[in-house]
Amino acid sequence: MASGTDTVDALAYARKNQTIFLERLFELLRIPSISTLAENVADIDRAADWLVSYLTETGLSNAQKYQTAGHPLVYAEWLEAGSSAPVLLIYGHYDVQPVDPLDLWHTPPFEPVVKGDHLYCRGASDDKGQMMALLFALESYLKASGRLPLNVKVLLEGEEEILSPNMDAFLAAHREQLACDAIVICDDSIFDANTPVITYGLRGNCYMEIEVSGPSQDLHSGSFGGAVDNPLNVLVRMLAALQDSNTHRVLIPGFYEHVREIDEAERALLTAYPGGEEQTQLLTGVPALAGESGYSAIERTSVRPTLDIHGIPGGFTAKGKKTVIPAHVGAKISMRLVPDQDPDEIQSLFEKYLRSIAPPTVHLEFRCLGKALPAVVDYRHPAVQAAAEAYQRGFGAFPVYTRTGGSIAVVAEMIHWLGAPVVMAGLGLPDDQIHAPNERFYLPNFYRGIETMIHYYDILAAGRMP
Amino acid sequence: MASGTDTVDALAYARKNQTIFLERLFELLRIPSISTLAENVADIDRAADWLVSYLTETGLSNAQKYQTAGHPLVYAEWLEAGSSAPVLLIYGHYDVQPVDPLDLWHTPPFEPVVKGDHLYCRGASDDKGQMMALLFALESYLKASGRLPLNVKVLLEGEEEILSPNMDAFLAAHREQLACDAIVICDDSIFDANTPVITYGLRGNCYMEIEVSGPSQDLHSGSFGGAVDNPLNVLVRMLAALQDSNTHRVLIPGFYEHVREIDEAERALLTAYPGGEEQTQLLTGVPALAGESGYSAIERTSVRPTLDIHGIPGGFTAKGKKTVIPAHVGAKISMRLVPDQDPDEIQSLFEKYLRSIAPPTVHLEFRCLGKALPAVVDYRHPAVQAAAEAYQRGFGAFPVYTRTGGSIAVVAEMIHWLGAPVVMAGLGLPDDQIHAPNERFYLPNFYRGIETMIHYYDILAAGRMP
Repeated sequence: MASGTDTVDALAYARKNQTIFLERLFELLRIPSISTLAENVADIDRAADWLVSYLTETGLSNAQKYQTAGHPLVYAEWLEAGSSAPVLLIYGHYDVQPVDPLDLWHTPPFEPVVKGDHLYCRGASDDKGQMMALLFALESYLKASGRLPLNVKVLLEGEEEILSPNMDAFLAAHREQLACDAIVICDDSIFDANTPVITYGLRGNCYMEIEVSGPSQDLHSGSFGGAVDNPLNVLVRMLAALQDSNTHRVLIPGFYEHVREIDEAERALLTAYPGGEEQTQLLTGVPALAGESGYSAIERTSVRPTLDIHGIPGGFTAKGKKTVIPAHVGAKISMRLVPDQDPDEIQSLFEKYLRSIAPPTVHLEFRCLGKALPAVVDYRHPAVQAAAEAYQRGFGAFPVYTRTGGSIAVVAEMIHWLGAPVVMAGLGLPDDQIHAPNERFYLPNFYRGIETMIHYYDILAAGRMP
Repeated sequence: MASGTDTVDALAYARKNQTIFLERLFELLRIPSISTLAENVADIDRAADWLVSYLTETGLSNAQKYQTAGHPLVYAEWLEAGSSAPVLLIYGHYDVQPVDPLDLWHTPPFEPVVKGDHLYCRGASDDKGQMMALLFALESYLKASGRLPLNVKVLLEGEEEILSPNMDAFLAAHREQLACDAIVICDDSIFDANTPVITYGLRGNCYMEIEVSGPSQDLHSGSFGGAVDNPLNVLVRMLAALQDSNTHRVLIPGFYEHVREIDEAERALLTAYPGGEEQTQLLTGVPALAGESGYSAIERTSVRPTLDIHGIPGGFTAKGKKTVIPAHVGAKISMRLVPDQDPDEIQSLFEKYLRSIAPPTVHLEFRCLGKALPAVVDYRHPAVQAAAEAYQRGFGAFPVYTRTGGSIAVVAEMIHWLGAPVVMAGLGLPDDQIHAPNERFYLPNFYRGIETMIHYYDILAAGRMP
């Protein structure tokens, strides 16, 4: 059984080894493990192998890759704390987003560069840096005193950025192996460096691709322009019909039917969250904010669903000009969902609506590229409250609570299959530019995060679990 | 002075050398002279050098490249027919369109392949094949009898597919050198292999690029979706407002103000043109035709202006998915114009309208990528009628007359600077798939075209000029 002395030793180890932790993180960051691009498959595998080696060296057992229909999962465990100690499942993901547009990066996207307090690299914040903070906290215990204060299972995914297509099946097949009392994820941003945040809700997602086809081949717009409905002209008319330009409401019939309206208590809780409009304006740099009528910026990005167009492939998009009427064009569109919207139903409503407004001059095809259920956790659960106390020790401040706008597909799935609460902690900052050029991680958060997690394991082990 | 015997000899030469003409054409086709792409600059130059060599070998004088601010022009002349003989200016272009989407080509785009009666290659029809027919007709005279029946100036451009940005200045600077009695262009399609066409009008063009900017950097649609106006969502709403979805009228205020309505005589002339709706449906393969209310398919593509979106660069358009709110997105849009629309005024109306409907959440930038004046020629002019007679001799059928939908920027400019009528002949077919994958040229038209041009030079020389 671990003692309070172990925690003191682990904290001392963590403080002493900050430079080494950073160098280890660099090794992982240099691997361009982009999950959505076929050309990075070998890199994904290399990142998984790196993690298996790291976890083995750190002293965990059974560290190994689990193959899936897509990219591998990495699993490891340390179960020697005894059956009376709680079991914590640590989740993270080692895959990253693509890096385009490349020309906007100030430094190479996969070469970690420290400038002042920031570490620049794709994956620095989302999620390699945050994930490694959880693991370096384990290392601090194991290297300092050879043991952990509680039982730990580690599950690291390589497909989070493509909405975890294989996690649901993996969780279903390994529910006994993964059985636990609580789950911790560190893949989110806190309000600012001095205001930690516990997230008790996530939006879901339904990511669709639509293809609009007209002519049997590309046409010259001089010869045929005016006599055929250009699929790109048709597509923009259809896409424009998805959202009201004034109220910003999504116009798909039935879209809002199962949206759970927040009550006054929750609205007050969210209103207490610092920042709001001013913070959003500052972080995004938009000329003016805009969003669904009747809701605050925080509500618009947390408890309200939305629709974003991400790209319109097809036609001529290189420099210069080409006078083409494209035979086929597409659009990538995602809808962020909130409880109790169901991604399957939303997909069906989306397709039905677009088919109903399509002219007879085109054919449509739809593909769903990914789905995630929305999720909400009870923020009063002891495993969540233990995290609040850990933040207080690591950051010197109790966290504020919020629901966030991003999707972590596995959260709802882990709640479903493992029957345990998911504690969504975070070490990122809102201006980390995740998914964008010049992603970065605020290094003081990295070091405080490692210590916070050392405290978290200690507090959980001290019996505050239900 | 050339005699009728020369024409007989030239025709015999042309018939005997069909295979050699084809092989010479192959040499030019293999040079990927794409004018809009920076990586093909050296190829453009190579194509120009090939033409200078060919014209010199053929016996023309002063064959040389003229540098411009962009790609070079090729010039040559043969002025030994005497001052009483007319001067004909032959115009063509040696640049070609890009070849994407590459995966739809059945054979490599720059490797000429003959299948049956068709020659497949980018540029086979537009315009290398048609241009070389005009030059092989010259060669037939010069090689068979050492002389031409009339004075000839040859001007070959390398920037036609990018709307001839440097031709106007060149014509202004070289108007005396280029002085002529008539101009012939062979860069169009005829109705079918047995129905030649003389084109007496061309649409103009105004090719615009718009850039919509919102956030100061790409944003994660989970974190910020709903609280900022996604520039791509805004862009599709603005583009959708450019054209009425029912009447297909362009909605830019003032767009139709200077459009010359056709009179009953001209409507009857165009109605007499064979094909119409059925032909358009057949050639395009669209599920259903569509276009401006109140006009036929031929009118919609000839005497009516239109607006086509060609591509929407920005955001994430690769395979897979990325949940990005792009900081900047763009759109490439061209408007085909008819007399008396002015491209400068249309550009101004376009920009003014889009600025008026843009929300305060974005910044707009506009770039004009090219302009061409619309043009109309009097089809009763003797130089045009000489072409009609030449077609009758070469194809065994008098041509029908039409106005076509494409733009040849130089036509209006040559009329303006040289004060001569432009005879727009053509040897292409409507299903040549110019500007598209698998461009092809119907070889019997190539050979008959060479003979037709031999006749044309003869008939013009015989004094039918005004």
